[in-house]
Amino acid sequence: MNIRNYTFDEFVERVKAFHGYEAPGVIIGGFMVDLAYRFLPEGWLLDALSETPKCLPDAIQLLTPCTVGNGWLTVVNVGRYALALYNKENGDGVRVFVDTDKLDPWTELKTWFFKLKPKKEQDTALLLSQIKEAGSGICGVQKVQVATQVIQRRRRGSLGVCPKCHEGYPLDDGPLCLACTGKELLYF
Amino acid sequence: MNIRNYTFDEFVERVKAFHGYEAPGVIIGGFMVDLAYRFLPEGWLLDALSETPKCLPDAIQLLTPCTVGNGWLTVVNVGRYALALYNKENGDGVRVFVDTDKLDPWTELKTWFFKLKPKKEQDTALLLSQIKEAGSGICGVQKVQVATQVIQRRRRGSLGVCPKCHEGYPLDDGPLCLACTGKELLYF
Repeated sequence: MNIRNYTFDEFVERVKAFHGYEAPGVIIGGFMVDLAYRFLPEGWLLDALSETPKCLPDAIQLLTPCTVGNGWLTVVNVGRYALALYNKENGDGVRVFVDTDKLDPWTELKTWFFKLKPKKEQDTALLLSQIKEAGSGICGVQKVQVATQVIQRRRRGSLGVCPKCHEGYPLDDGPLCLACTGKELLYF
Repeated sequence: MNIRNYTFDEFVERVKAFHGYEAPGVIIGGFMVDLAYRFLPEGWLLDALSETPKCLPDAIQLLTPCTVGNGWLTVVNVGRYALALYNKENGDGVRVFVDTDKLDPWTELKTWFFKLKPKKEQDTALLLSQIKEAGSGICGVQKVQVATQVIQRRRRGSLGVCPKCHEGYPLDDGPLCLACTGKELLYF
């Protein structure tokens, strides 16, 4: 019951080092990434999509070549605990999601997933043991075709210097950068 | 001229392992994170903001406890090559940006930054040596107060099961999840 090239315990150590603590979501995410790979042919150049910014992107970044910074991982927050790994050429891929119908036997896991009790009342040892035992058994798998707008989400195009902040910015954004126009309020 | 706890060469190796190749942007990002820390008191619990999804998030994830998945790193794409590290309690922090006025002595670096020639014509060895020599000398530093909407960007709230896809989703999003309403087109 490995997670890619790691044993369960090795992966938990990797999660602690990168994510800061043994987050249940990242560990489940590990099983999800592992499951997705089992349905993919070897040799594909893969991109990844995470449907939530919570935890799952870190499992993807730990177990695939895809990171946020290299652009091979896209995060779109639709709030579902699901990911897709897909061929970056044509969008063919595999989606893995948490199948809520399969959570019933795992009481502590289900309680955690649906946030049914406060974190401090959570039985972390039981939760982690249920995650380990359940593995990818709580997941579903689908073949998918990732939409073109996800594949082409990255902006290209020329850069200029914003006349207001004097920093480099994508000229496609208009005469000023999006921070200076106030479209995105970042600082007071 | 270290980058946090790494020598330059050690950091380049870390970048290759995580990001897939020795991306100029991640290496510059390393100097930027290092510079930000020099202006911050020890002991603050830090969150991070990246103003671009390109490269910089990976430098932050390699050199700080902040990752996309643990929520301590927020990426807002205003297309500026800048980051902020800030006190997660009150938003007080330090912003580091590439000061375009300081790029002139570094011809290959400036050419790369403004994408003035195609990647295949780029002199990668010269570019990396200019990055190493320039270090954080091409950067500016500002004290900032990060906006409340950035600090509170994460969604909390109750989860339910979407009646259409039967997956878990944040009930605040409405009667269906954002994927099923079509607000975000992810798959064909």
